[in-house]
Amino acid sequence: MSRTPPLFGDRLAAAVDAVGSPLCVGLDPHLDRLPPALRARFAGRTGADFRGLAADAAAEFCITAIDAVHGIAAALKPQVAFFEALGAPGVAALERTVAHARDRGMLVIADAKRGDISSTAAAYARAILDPQGPLAADAVTLAPYMGLDVVQPFLPWCRDHGRGVFVLVRTTNPGSALLQRHGSPEVAQVVADGLAELGAPLVGDSGLSSVGAVVGAFAAEEAAALRARMPAAWFLVPGVGAQGGGVAEALAGARSDGQGALVNSARGILFAAGGRDDDDPATAIAGRARALADQLRSCAGAASS
Amino acid sequence: MSRTPPLFGDRLAAAVDAVGSPLCVGLDPHLDRLPPALRARFAGRTGADFRGLAADAAAEFCITAIDAVHGIAAALKPQVAFFEALGAPGVAALERTVAHARDRGMLVIADAKRGDISSTAAAYARAILDPQGPLAADAVTLAPYMGLDVVQPFLPWCRDHGRGVFVLVRTTNPGSALLQRHGSPEVAQVVADGLAELGAPLVGDSGLSSVGAVVGAFAAEEAAALRARMPAAWFLVPGVGAQGGGVAEALAGARSDGQGALVNSARGILFAAGGRDDDDPATAIAGRARALADQLRSCAGAASS
Repeated sequence: MSRTPPLFGDRLAAAVDAVGSPLCVGLDPHLDRLPPALRARFAGRTGADFRGLAADAAAEFCITAIDAVHGIAAALKPQVAFFEALGAPGVAALERTVAHARDRGMLVIADAKRGDISSTAAAYARAILDPQGPLAADAVTLAPYMGLDVVQPFLPWCRDHGRGVFVLVRTTNPGSALLQRHGSPEVAQVVADGLAELGAPLVGDSGLSSVGAVVGAFAAEEAAALRARMPAAWFLVPGVGAQGGGVAEALAGARSDGQGALVNSARGILFAAGGRDDDDPATAIAGRARALADQLRSCAGAASS
Repeated sequence: MSRTPPLFGDRLAAAVDAVGSPLCVGLDPHLDRLPPALRARFAGRTGADFRGLAADAAAEFCITAIDAVHGIAAALKPQVAFFEALGAPGVAALERTVAHARDRGMLVIADAKRGDISSTAAAYARAILDPQGPLAADAVTLAPYMGLDVVQPFLPWCRDHGRGVFVLVRTTNPGSALLQRHGSPEVAQVVADGLAELGAPLVGDSGLSSVGAVVGAFAAEEAAALRARMPAAWFLVPGVGAQGGGVAEALAGARSDGQGALVNSARGILFAAGGRDDDDPATAIAGRARALADQLRSCAGAASS
């Protein structure tokens, strides 16, 4: 029986179905890569003055990007650090950006990598997932160094409000193996097993759970092994495009039917115009997003056939 | 030769010396535990209206607490989640709180447990540690699930601006052992060894480094073993008071001279007045802080004699 509101795993599956591709667009507003007309608004400013103007420019750019990828991308992943770097006006800009995505009916995964416990984690959950809260994102990324206690306070929002979490399992940065591949079984495998258990009561009609995992695109064989441990988890796969991952690697952790992997690209799509005034950013962003969405569609389709 | 500005390890050692106790006061403004007069300001409000009024009340309460523990506590540790739960006005309230602490000459450790890499981590470092940035805290807590890459972008701020980091090593929450004690050597030991290496170039005249560690108060034998691996690290020890840790356990990771452990207490000090109108919060907070500072002083003194 379907729930009201639907579970996040089903909401994300429906969003992927609607656009026909598992593309997630990362909203990482690097200030020095914004279009020149936007950069001019805060160039030469300092302090609080700079932060207010830069935050407005970042929000405007992200809103342009959201409109450009509407109907192409299944979800959006704002990187909260770029907004927080601008202080309170940056956080207000993030709130406006997320509100715009919601108005356009797009799912938002706040990439915050929070990882705390008890009342602190509960405060983060309210900050990010509460539908009545300041951000009201659909999902959030979490970091499990403190153990799976960090996930627990987010689960009521998953159960009762259609929210989701993506917990770091296996990443592709140079130093990632130090912890993630440590021991036997490896830490990443231990976390995967724990998440499968936590996510089991939250599997929707799609067969996918509200408790997802962040699994990098470079760890192709590992991704398949982690999929075996987490058959119902959505995998959020960062690193396609600017971070160098390929489309086939990004989908290595998908289920045998090609579903269950959401693939993120940020810089490769956002800064498609290369900062040149003579390019229209919206057109360039839409073009780049469509090309990657098509690649993902072909590749996921090939896997399932 | 001393540096200008001095390294964080030395700045913290000087702060502990100045007050004669390694007490850190946690600023965790639980809204439902604020004094009744402050709670009345946002009672019954909702949405953005609620968040603005609650943020102002939280800042006012924290500023009262800062003034009350000035000259008693060596440092302050605001928990950013409680501010972020209130959105942009909450972040503005955190900025005002930290600015007030700076005006009073007190060190601030932003408890943010950030843990990301490359340009994202660099954005968090600017957000939290940059002296020209919105928060300009003296130090920040970090979570190393992605490996020691998460620390790297913070090190230039440590080297050139007297800033510090405290990286999660061993915590005392129920699920902490899942990762932290996994493998042989244990993950916590692997992280400790890595931090000792990263921190070695940043050891000041005090013999203490800008790269510190979060080590919980319950892990007493473990704390001594971790101290052996990180002889120059400041240990930030959460969990004294409301979280149940004792003073002797909290100091178990100190060096043989009794130095090098900074002990945090939040709720046990902040909510000393018990929410009763007839108690003056400032007096109650100062009294509770002084009692704990005295206990820590005696215990650290006993260890070194």
